Amino acid sequence: MIQPSIPKGTRDFPPAVMRKRQFILDTIRVIFERYGFQPLETPSMENLATLEGKYGEEGDQLMFRVLDNGEILEKARDAADTRQLVSRLSSKALRYDLTIPFARFVVMNQHQLVFPFRRYQVQPVWRADRPQKSRYREFYQCDADIIGTDSLLCEIELLQLLDEALTALGLKDAGIRINHRSLLAGLAGLTGRPEMLPEITIAIDKLDKIGWSGVSEELLLRGMDSRAIQVVANFIAIRGDHQKVLESLRALFPEGSPGHPGVVGLTGILENSYAGLGSRVLIDLSLARGLHYYTGTIIEALPPEGVKTGSIAGGGRYDDLTGLFGLKGISGVGISFGVDRIYDALEELGLFPPDQDSRTRVLFLNLGEEGMQQSYRLLQRMRQAGTPAEIYPSQAKMDRQLKYADKNRIPYVVMIGGSELEAGKLSLKDLSTGQQTLISAEELLGWSF
Amino acid sequence: MIQPSIPKGTRDFPPAVMRKRQFILDTIRVIFERYGFQPLETPSMENLATLEGKYGEEGDQLMFRVLDNGEILEKARDAADTRQLVSRLSSKALRYDLTIPFARFVVMNQHQLVFPFRRYQVQPVWRADRPQKSRYREFYQCDADIIGTDSLLCEIELLQLLDEALTALGLKDAGIRINHRSLLAGLAGLTGRPEMLPEITIAIDKLDKIGWSGVSEELLLRGMDSRAIQVVANFIAIRGDHQKVLESLRALFPEGSPGHPGVVGLTGILENSYAGLGSRVLIDLSLARGLHYYTGTIIEALPPEGVKTGSIAGGGRYDDLTGLFGLKGISGVGISFGVDRIYDALEELGLFPPDQDSRTRVLFLNLGEEGMQQSYRLLQRMRQAGTPAEIYPSQAKMDRQLKYADKNRIPYVVMIGGSELEAGKLSLKDLSTGQQTLISAEELLGWSF
Repeated sequence: MIQPSIPKGTRDFPPAVMRKRQFILDTIRVIFERYGFQPLETPSMENLATLEGKYGEEGDQLMFRVLDNGEILEKARDAADTRQLVSRLSSKALRYDLTIPFARFVVMNQHQLVFPFRRYQVQPVWRADRPQKSRYREFYQCDADIIGTDSLLCEIELLQLLDEALTALGLKDAGIRINHRSLLAGLAGLTGRPEMLPEITIAIDKLDKIGWSGVSEELLLRGMDSRAIQVVANFIAIRGDHQKVLESLRALFPEGSPGHPGVVGLTGILENSYAGLGSRVLIDLSLARGLHYYTGTIIEALPPEGVKTGSIAGGGRYDDLTGLFGLKGISGVGISFGVDRIYDALEELGLFPPDQDSRTRVLFLNLGEEGMQQSYRLLQRMRQAGTPAEIYPSQAKMDRQLKYADKNRIPYVVMIGGSELEAGKLSLKDLSTGQQTLISAEELLGWSF
Repeated sequence: MIQPSIPKGTRDFPPAVMRKRQFILDTIRVIFERYGFQPLETPSMENLATLEGKYGEEGDQLMFRVLDNGEILEKARDAADTRQLVSRLSSKALRYDLTIPFARFVVMNQHQLVFPFRRYQVQPVWRADRPQKSRYREFYQCDADIIGTDSLLCEIELLQLLDEALTALGLKDAGIRINHRSLLAGLAGLTGRPEMLPEITIAIDKLDKIGWSGVSEELLLRGMDSRAIQVVANFIAIRGDHQKVLESLRALFPEGSPGHPGVVGLTGILENSYAGLGSRVLIDLSLARGLHYYTGTIIEALPPEGVKTGSIAGGGRYDDLTGLFGLKGISGVGISFGVDRIYDALEELGLFPPDQDSRTRVLFLNLGEEGMQQSYRLLQRMRQAGTPAEIYPSQAKMDRQLKYADKNRIPYVVMIGGSELEAGKLSLKDLSTGQQTLISAEELLGWSF
């Protein structure tokens, strides 16, 4: 018999981990609901036509494809290459993110939906990445999007939602950074190499990881001259409070220039008179968020200082996501929480609330038939009143039963043995203090656990 | 551009459906927790070695296999048949149920777990079944199991949990049926053809669908003579309250006979003095629950009369599930809720609680910059106080904003326009009655929505 195992890069979530994950997801979900987002789930498998070509070359390679069922031998014959073989044997793949399936859903249901449509979605996604620390082949995404309006109020709401969720998770020191894709286009214009926008975006996206020397080296390799690279350096060096940064940007990008929409956007988000985000959100002109479908505002949250995980949430505005499926001119904006990284950050900072280990408050020991009958009736009354409780299922040695309570972090045990039966009472023991009290059944049912 | 679609047999769950599903799952989950079950999740993909051969020939065919990534062309060459081809190209498959992954988890974590281990698990599973009404290729299972004890108390607890969950769902008229695998073995002995236990099990399992004439025909085809078939007929005709049925069974299966453990088991579950299940649970000697791993008690819940879905929950005791992975002698018992069928039953009976459509209680209309600023601040105070609320993101026509509230079933709108600003008040409109009230901000924040 081979020792059983699970696929590389996947995880079991045992109860203690599940409860902590549920704390994170429940916290975020409640806030999504408060902001009017509505739940959606899409199938784990999507047709290849829906997914292919949406995540770049790399995405197509990292997708998990599902084999068609039935007789496939003949189809496999004489395939010219792996790509052709795969396309003959597989017509479905596992979800790679939640955004493309959301766009597909919106297009398929455009006549039933009321726009603007606010949805949230919490489901696993799958990527055949090389597994490494905090990178898994199956992981949850936790997204909220508003689609069907280009109002900046949506950016404002999402930033406040982000702040509120991080605060509720105990991460109110997490930094929130913002940028705008038009500013990056403006920067590319300033360098005199507007066609190099993708290269500039990819390079400065790595600033956190490889530092400025790495970024400038990469730009040089891509054929940018040192004068242009200096323009990039000067640009991302613009820092400070948002009034100061916006002032510099206004000077760089006058009306009509490619960077101007970014100035207008960030001004509208940060300098309104009601939301008060200015003190919470930092403009970071080096923020790029990879080569996503984003076209406007981009947003990222970093963990509190000292925590080594990367960004714990991110998002942005996209102007033509549903255009991929034929529905043009629908603008949307969304935010995504990195559940695994938030988990790591909370663990590292010791921020999970206590008592996530067990819900069960009371274990009835099993000390013999007569006591058991009474225990069982009380157990059922406690459960019906909403208190999670258990009874040890067999008359094992007392030691073993107590060890069960201890290992499962059940805080109280109830014992009904010979002397308790005689007294018409029961013993309640607090396992944290060792204190044992003789009380009546009514007292037990009124006890605050 | 091709019209986007989703794979056959899969579903999107839009918000209104999601909320109803969440009602079902949350209801069951709360009760699982009250009974001391702990949450577990396992990966969507399992290694083929874990899954293959565990669900019979049919299961192996209906599994969704995941293609290995990377260069697979060479591996596909000269495969003798589809089976060989598949085994060369795929080393993982999607979860087919929650039970085998649970057994695999228990074996892998046997030294960390405290037995008896009570776990619940709510996750999707995948089967390449031919899609038809209420049968999908991706569907949720919702299971609770206790492993590591053969105490009948576990059966009793699961039956009470089942009753409590069905009641909480509004299905307290659902019938709960029970049988025992030993009784079926006993029956096979009574026919004189003990080796035909599998055939008898498969045949009587179809009684609901094909009637007795179908069952007897099938047994005849399988080579059973009419005298033996009459024994089966007489056996499954034993009906009535459990005292009467148990009496007949005691006469048929004396101590030492293969059916006797079933008599002892059902007696222990139904005739104890504390649980009082006798009036709630019916012995049904034709209950077979397919050819599962069950070895002892088997349990099934049927929807209330008149609802045409099949069983809405089922379970039973298995004596050697982890033995599949090398850990012998661990008995367990479990129950599984059929979420899709429960959904259909609640829908058919109109039993979903009202107001599952939307959580958002209030929509602030967007009537101009000045009113909007005040609206936004109030909106945020309401959200922080826990009331789900929204603001319409742009100054669209009033009609359109009201239609948004109506279609999303948001019960109240708040309007802050010129006259309200002048009065220092706001208008609150109840969309169900049409009644509109001029109130202060403080009154709004104190309103009970």
